[in-house]
Amino acid sequence: MKTTIKEELKVALESPILIEGLPGLGMVGRIAVKYIIKQLNAEMLGLLYSPHFPYYVVVNKKGSVRLLRGEFHYWKNPKGSDLILFTGDSQAQTVDGQYEIAETILDFAKKQGVASIITLGGYRKEAGESPKVVATATDDEILSKAVEADALPSPPGNPIVGTAGLLVGMAKFKKLPALCLLGETRGYLPDPKAAKSLLIVLQKMLGISLNLDDIEKEIEKSAGILERMQAIEARRETYAKKMRKGEEDKTTYIS
Amino acid sequence: MKTTIKEELKVALESPILIEGLPGLGMVGRIAVKYIIKQLNAEMLGLLYSPHFPYYVVVNKKGSVRLLRGEFHYWKNPKGSDLILFTGDSQAQTVDGQYEIAETILDFAKKQGVASIITLGGYRKEAGESPKVVATATDDEILSKAVEADALPSPPGNPIVGTAGLLVGMAKFKKLPALCLLGETRGYLPDPKAAKSLLIVLQKMLGISLNLDDIEKEIEKSAGILERMQAIEARRETYAKKMRKGEEDKTTYIS
Amino acid sequence: MKTTIKEELKVALESPILIEGLPGLGMVGRIAVKYIIKQLNAEMLGLLYSPHFPYYVVVNKKGSVRLLRGEFHYWKNPKGSDLILFTGDSQAQTVDGQYEIAETILDFAKKQGVASIITLGGYRKEAGESPKVVATATDDEILSKAVEADALPSPPGNPIVGTAGLLVGMAKFKKLPALCLLGETRGYLPDPKAAKSLLIVLQKMLGISLNLDDIEKEIEKSAGILERMQAIEARRETYAKKMRKGEEDKTTYIS
Amino acid sequence: MKTTIKEELKVALESPILIEGLPGLGMVGRIAVKYIIKQLNAEMLGLLYSPHFPYYVVVNKKGSVRLLRGEFHYWKNPKGSDLILFTGDSQAQTVDGQYEIAETILDFAKKQGVASIITLGGYRKEAGESPKVVATATDDEILSKAVEADALPSPPGNPIVGTAGLLVGMAKFKKLPALCLLGETRGYLPDPKAAKSLLIVLQKMLGISLNLDDIEKEIEKSAGILERMQAIEARRETYAKKMRKGEEDKTTYIS
Repeated sequence: MKTTIKEELKVALESPILIEGLPGLGMVGRIAVKYIIKQLNAEMLGLLYSPHFPYYVVVNKKGSVRLLRGEFHYWKNPKGSDLILFTGDSQAQTVDGQYEIAETILDFAKKQGVASIITLGGYRKEAGESPKVVATATDDEILSKAVEADALPSPPGNPIVGTAGLLVGMAKFKKLPALCLLGETRGYLPDPKAAKSLLIVLQKMLGISLNLDDIEKEIEKSAGILERMQAIEARRETYAKKMRKGEEDKTTYIS
Repeated sequence: MKTTIKEELKVALESPILIEGLPGLGMVGRIAVKYIIKQLNAEMLGLLYSPHFPYYVVVNKKGSVRLLRGEFHYWKNPKGSDLILFTGDSQAQTVDGQYEIAETILDFAKKQGVASIITLGGYRKEAGESPKVVATATDDEILSKAVEADALPSPPGNPIVGTAGLLVGMAKFKKLPALCLLGETRGYLPDPKAAKSLLIVLQKMLGISLNLDDIEKEIEKSAGILERMQAIEARRETYAKKMRKGEEDKTTYIS
Repeated sequence: MKTTIKEELKVALESPILIEGLPGLGMVGRIAVKYIIKQLNAEMLGLLYSPHFPYYVVVNKKGSVRLLRGEFHYWKNPKGSDLILFTGDSQAQTVDGQYEIAETILDFAKKQGVASIITLGGYRKEAGESPKVVATATDDEILSKAVEADALPSPPGNPIVGTAGLLVGMAKFKKLPALCLLGETRGYLPDPKAAKSLLIVLQKMLGISLNLDDIEKEIEKSAGILERMQAIEARRETYAKKMRKGEEDKTTYIS
Repeated sequence: MKTTIKEELKVALESPILIEGLPGLGMVGRIAVKYIIKQLNAEMLGLLYSPHFPYYVVVNKKGSVRLLRGEFHYWKNPKGSDLILFTGDSQAQTVDGQYEIAETILDFAKKQGVASIITLGGYRKEAGESPKVVATATDDEILSKAVEADALPSPPGNPIVGTAGLLVGMAKFKKLPALCLLGETRGYLPDPKAAKSLLIVLQKMLGISLNLDDIEKEIEKSAGILERMQAIEARRETYAKKMRKGEEDKTTYIS
């Protein structure tokens, strides 16, 4: 088995933009792409399978089994660029598998006449109330479009790990302009707030309009989880301090 | 060396059902398939070798050496579907090796005219007196047959690791209906009781009849082992609690 | 770069026996094969290179550099079977590399008209004064020859790891009789005593005569090293016991 | 994606010498090659990409993204041998990837008519004021040139890890004379002083002249960092000793 894409249907898209978001830091890219697919009612275009994905299968709601996979959806935009949306269950598990999957996606993009690529992910930071979006790109033209949509150019030296990075790095070889947008996130938990920041930038860049009510609800829910976890963390911290103080006292006392 | 199957003989089978059980959680799948092979006096059909198996050989009873391998046996059923039974020494040791071996098995199944596939394994649970059997499948038709034979449909989200999972996940590409049956097991030790649960479901599904006396004896033996191990565990636990108590007392006393 | 053998010269050998010994448990196989090469003044036949060996080079006595490699030497036996002797710097570092190297050696053996294969290694045991030699084989005929030369048939279940095992396991596919001889060793240090046991069995089996004076000297040297290490170990053990006793006393005292 | 070299331009070089220095011990090889490129204003010749490099991309000063890569620069020497200078972001991450990359570099060298190869790296040693340069080679002729330029022949047994080693080890197969120069370094931090030692040897060997002012500044800077780190280390050591003493006192007191 090689990394392959099984096309579910043939559809004529007009210079579509490919948007990618796989699991990664804070699940930011995956949350954002899945949200767009749902809000736009994007339809299934094809499935990517790879022997570099983890070797287990997942059970669906109907009790049926499927391999881990990547999913391409498409959306025909009545007012602007069509979209191809790529997300999936997992990143590749091997070094060369990461490159193989990125190249397979790019070959598929070329075949579909993709005009440009936007990859999404998380950027580790103690994010505040409205996490910022950091942008890098293959060239200035596409980068400046992101900046016009309120993304910040990335500082140099920042490594971008996995498919979101490799797609942009390898897009040059296929003469495709590509952009990477990273939402600031602490990255410990799935972070819909960082994903929302990406959605806001994407709305401006693509001239589309997404209903953000559902992601607001997810943000509230995740804020509740975070609060509970931080409370637990704080208690543990206090306890550990006490313990350490005990230890220090003991040491002083005895020695 | 590639993953290959060495056919030991040619035999005409009528739409056989392939049943797979490799080492895994509680050794449940392997115990069940080996038991069926022995009870039905199934005969050797072919051997699967792979450079993704661990790189050691085992010494047989006669002092002779052999590579790790998978084994296909067959049984001609006078009253119903013929069976091909697959078990082996080991799972693949690499990510893409797992996919390669599953694909090789499926290609062989196609060549043998296999009509459907049943994979066997363990399902982690603090199993009670009669461990249940959980089922997932490629489609509703084969799943409902398992449910009629008293298996429970799997809850969603449950990952099935290794060959038992991949075979079902990849069977779709070969247009083969496939079913995965998992026996509930704690998974710490080889678990013949969970394997017996699988055998009971399989008997109903396949309309075959297996003498279960020998597996009852194995269950008794393993219950003895488990009791002794639990006794050791309990003593260790008691001792550890005492130690922790000592530590806590000490801390309180000194600080 | 693939695993390849660079032949240094063409030489007509009469149904030679291939003897293999790579680094492994107690370095037993490698010590034995290197000793035979030296004592018989065997000549270089070819070199095996592989991208599955570790990725470093070693510096020779003359300050020149070479890749890690396997080495084939040959010896024309005036009174019996010619020998091909294989040893090397390292085992393969990857799972499938282990299989690839074993297969490459076997293909070379076939090409050289090899009549049978003997692989050498160590067998973990608290060996006594004269470590025994344990034998396993592809078939009874070659095994009985080893037993006549005072090797003991291996108990079943014993795994033989690495090239020494795989060569015997894969020899069947090439219709080559193969034997594995393992010298009992504690395995912590290079163990010339275990290697000597192998040499004694090989002398009888092959009808050759080796001067064992040099290996006796190595055994004396290594016995000295072992004594010093055991003295250090014993002191550390005593100290650790004392410490643990102190800890237990402390716990008892305080709680 | 395979390991490939994208040639940026075609240029006629006269029997050039290839000098390699990738990240490794003390970053010595990479610092030296980057310094030569800068001082000689060497121009870009080609880029090496590989799926065995780590799977992330880096962000450049201009906010643009690129894959990890190796870089070939060239310099036309008006008075002697032309140079090809190879450095890069990373070593290969897999065992066989290391061999694949070394072989790709050698094939490119052959194509460019390279006359000889010099690889650079670090040699672990508690280096003094002026770290020495240790040399190993494919043959005596090129080694003696290095010795004439004040390098010391390497003692035997010394392993040279990674591309610097493999290139010399594999150069023989391409009938290319190759030399490895290693600067003595503690190896904990990037070590421009060890790199300078290499530059001095290279100047003599190649009859070129490099302005060493900038590397002197780097050495001063790194000496400052080292001092601060050693001060921290010393304080930690003192503290740890105190703690251990406290522990020992405690133990003595209680038991």
